[in-house]
Amino acid sequence: MRLLFSCQDQVGIVAKVTAFLAARDLNILTLDQHTNETGYFFMRLVIDGKRTAKLEKEIDKYLALPLQAQWQLTDSSRQRQVVIFCSRQDHCLSDLIYRTQSNEMSCQIKRVISNHQKTKRLVENAGIPFHYLPINKETKPQVEQKQLELCRDADLVVLARYMQILSADFLEQVSAPVINIHHSFLPAFVGADPYRRAWERGVKLIGATSHFVTEELDMGPIIEQDITRVTHRHSVEDLVRLGAEVEKAVLARAVRDFVEDRVIVDQQKTVVFK
Amino acid sequence: MRLLFSCQDQVGIVAKVTAFLAARDLNILTLDQHTNETGYFFMRLVIDGKRTAKLEKEIDKYLALPLQAQWQLTDSSRQRQVVIFCSRQDHCLSDLIYRTQSNEMSCQIKRVISNHQKTKRLVENAGIPFHYLPINKETKPQVEQKQLELCRDADLVVLARYMQILSADFLEQVSAPVINIHHSFLPAFVGADPYRRAWERGVKLIGATSHFVTEELDMGPIIEQDITRVTHRHSVEDLVRLGAEVEKAVLARAVRDFVEDRVIVDQQKTVVFK
Amino acid sequence: MRLLFSCQDQVGIVAKVTAFLAARDLNILTLDQHTNETGYFFMRLVIDGKRTAKLEKEIDKYLALPLQAQWQLTDSSRQRQVVIFCSRQDHCLSDLIYRTQSNEMSCQIKRVISNHQKTKRLVENAGIPFHYLPINKETKPQVEQKQLELCRDADLVVLARYMQILSADFLEQVSAPVINIHHSFLPAFVGADPYRRAWERGVKLIGATSHFVTEELDMGPIIEQDITRVTHRHSVEDLVRLGAEVEKAVLARAVRDFVEDRVIVDQQKTVVFK
Amino acid sequence: MRLLFSCQDQVGIVAKVTAFLAARDLNILTLDQHTNETGYFFMRLVIDGKRTAKLEKEIDKYLALPLQAQWQLTDSSRQRQVVIFCSRQDHCLSDLIYRTQSNEMSCQIKRVISNHQKTKRLVENAGIPFHYLPINKETKPQVEQKQLELCRDADLVVLARYMQILSADFLEQVSAPVINIHHSFLPAFVGADPYRRAWERGVKLIGATSHFVTEELDMGPIIEQDITRVTHRHSVEDLVRLGAEVEKAVLARAVRDFVEDRVIVDQQKTVVFK
Repeated sequence: MRLLFSCQDQVGIVAKVTAFLAARDLNILTLDQHTNETGYFFMRLVIDGKRTAKLEKEIDKYLALPLQAQWQLTDSSRQRQVVIFCSRQDHCLSDLIYRTQSNEMSCQIKRVISNHQKTKRLVENAGIPFHYLPINKETKPQVEQKQLELCRDADLVVLARYMQILSADFLEQVSAPVINIHHSFLPAFVGADPYRRAWERGVKLIGATSHFVTEELDMGPIIEQDITRVTHRHSVEDLVRLGAEVEKAVLARAVRDFVEDRVIVDQQKTVVFK
Repeated sequence: MRLLFSCQDQVGIVAKVTAFLAARDLNILTLDQHTNETGYFFMRLVIDGKRTAKLEKEIDKYLALPLQAQWQLTDSSRQRQVVIFCSRQDHCLSDLIYRTQSNEMSCQIKRVISNHQKTKRLVENAGIPFHYLPINKETKPQVEQKQLELCRDADLVVLARYMQILSADFLEQVSAPVINIHHSFLPAFVGADPYRRAWERGVKLIGATSHFVTEELDMGPIIEQDITRVTHRHSVEDLVRLGAEVEKAVLARAVRDFVEDRVIVDQQKTVVFK
Repeated sequence: MRLLFSCQDQVGIVAKVTAFLAARDLNILTLDQHTNETGYFFMRLVIDGKRTAKLEKEIDKYLALPLQAQWQLTDSSRQRQVVIFCSRQDHCLSDLIYRTQSNEMSCQIKRVISNHQKTKRLVENAGIPFHYLPINKETKPQVEQKQLELCRDADLVVLARYMQILSADFLEQVSAPVINIHHSFLPAFVGADPYRRAWERGVKLIGATSHFVTEELDMGPIIEQDITRVTHRHSVEDLVRLGAEVEKAVLARAVRDFVEDRVIVDQQKTVVFK
Repeated sequence: MRLLFSCQDQVGIVAKVTAFLAARDLNILTLDQHTNETGYFFMRLVIDGKRTAKLEKEIDKYLALPLQAQWQLTDSSRQRQVVIFCSRQDHCLSDLIYRTQSNEMSCQIKRVISNHQKTKRLVENAGIPFHYLPINKETKPQVEQKQLELCRDADLVVLARYMQILSADFLEQVSAPVINIHHSFLPAFVGADPYRRAWERGVKLIGATSHFVTEELDMGPIIEQDITRVTHRHSVEDLVRLGAEVEKAVLARAVRDFVEDRVIVDQQKTVVFK
């Protein structure tokens, strides 16, 4: 099982938590911790043992309450349920399907929601339910309600090149975190058509950024980024093609880190225990 | 010798230029060409042979005039004269001194101009003239006149973490191209204090950008960029330290490419023949 | 169309070839050339125009014969026919199928040959013929005959993690080049089980190498290589998983470069015009 | 202060060590741990507080003895004393001098030993004692005795492109660890002239490896590795030049990690807590 634990820093947190575990004969497989610049403490433990309701109660009573901590205990073997949103482009979607079905990532794609029919065959061939929900200005509120229902049992919502902006209402109501892949090296090229703008600026590297979605466009906490080299020989189309490689890799790493409980949001940033 | 040649694209340019060279028994060692999206053609040739006034006249007459081309023929063995501007930080300066003095780069640092005394010893120990020119709002016009005089014989001006903005007047009057190293992955974090802003944004990669200096701050044509990975564990100071590595490498590559005549400005971008 | 042209270096080759093209009103889109250390010259041209039998005859007569050159003119729009060999692991196969079917690479997977049934569904779902040819010591000669027949119309044979060694006989008889992906950074860890050996050695980077297959195991000309970072935390299984990413990327780049006529074998090495 | 602690894995080690520290009101700034495949446990702690003889006695009594652990407590502010060996090439030496003198690395270069006079001026200009100890087959035993004396007060010996092989005798007698930079991506190209051999093999990436020196040539535990991309255009001399960049970076990172107590030898490998 995995324990995420965070609270105001003070002497003895690690000692308290690890003594608590040792007293219950639970061996620590991995321990990572971090204290940020404001003195807030974050810890991730991988523990050899099974999560039980009793253990959770005891963590609450003996650790979380006295330390005023936020915490979460997860069963390492439980597959997280992921709902994917996409539009026309299928490279990220197809990559995530391959990785989950080959057990490279410990999660299950529960369903795919798209405002286009284009990926229907790919999704259904993989045995995954596909929901076609076209969307426009007028229908947006109702469609988002349907989307919310379809996300109710999700542990994670992934926007795999979903070309619509989710409303503040949606983000407030959705119970699972939402991870997006933006096709630029944020904060460069926020918003639409980043590859064209990168090409016009004549950059020598292009990138992709996976981040949590918040109300402000492309401004949520960054989970992972990567880049690839380009030259004057590359057209916008080349950038799109080369960038797709980076998008796939970056989104897959972010989703993988999330489902392994490696990612903690720290205000506008993330702690990612690799 | 090296020939840079650019003109409006049309059938037969390469044939004309290479036939011209073959007729003079000049062997081509390297040929690189590129046509941009507006149909403008760029070519770089490394030619086995010596640059002569006669050859230049003939290029002008038989190639440049008929093709309405811009061109430049340089002696590969001639060391370019570089004037470096710096302020307090010496990592890029020190790196350029080492590289030029170990003959890793085919150029000579003619002199160093700084608004601080801090690097004086380093520069003079290396046998390079050091000019201390402190600068403030009031003295800027006069100081820039002195700087211009000291740049009169330069083939290239390098801003090696020079923390002053050159005026539009200076840029108009200076005869050599000016290359800057900006300590961010442009166009992210234009302007001051990019490492702090990168840290506040929580990016997972930081970068550096070498570009030609134009009037608009940090908006000149990009020559080279690179990045390095950072995590939540890194403080602003760590970013400064890790970024310094990238700055050194990126600036050195840009200067090296420039002195080897590999860089051609193409409107707001560069063609860099690697 | 694309022209690959190589011969002993001498003054005027580029002039001759480009004049020949200009005289036929054929515009050069890209020209790359290289002369190796023994004075052998290689050139790749992308030419705006259609390949015709007449043009081929003229190239032969006016260029290849006088210069004693080896050359090849290909139709850029013609999709190369690729035959893929694989065994149990499907990450490279699946990646190549996605890339060809999304038109990211200008080639067609004609058929897949495997000594295991495992990838049959994946291949047939994609509408590609699948040939199950189990192999053992006794049956190897006959099976290789069948494989040869299935490769007769191939422009390229790709070993996408095919875990059998092709015999010298097969390599002599097969008409198409054979490209392999080796799951190490050659020449480190030639042969079997490279990830385990990399882990035992405690390397900090693991890699993959795509190369032409020659009789000597893992010693053919290298086309492309890449690496990824690993730490003491990674198990052999992690190396296999992380390495799979690199294998996919490296093999895809090698195949793409090959089908775009960017790769020329130069004795034990390759020239790859990027 | 920093505590390195390793022992056979068992339930409660982290609890015991951290409770011990909490009881003494010592706050943990960083904790990293790792258990290897044979069940051996490694931990590195950065602790807010001062190392005292009393604390060391107590660690020994209450932690190390009961857990049969190996441990080491170091004062974070104490600068490690480094002795550098070099030959003719000065890029790594010059880089280490710059980094130590600009306080980028928390260590002091105590002296430089070389079998050539070439770097004498560079070293002495930096205010560092230089010892010229030419060496040949006959004088090797006596010279190594002198070298041993000059290493007696060292915390670390760095071979910064020292082109001599240290004898088994030397390695047995030297009290400090010895770190080497090998100019290839080990285990490829063990031994002499790796860049030439890399060029002959036609690799597309070249690398450098920093490792502890053991009796078997280039086979000691690897601390850090990195690579850079090369193409068919690069000569052996280009590989030497490009490789020098990687050597500098890799050696600096290994030395920095060592002096920050991040490196623990684990049989033939290393644990490097980044």
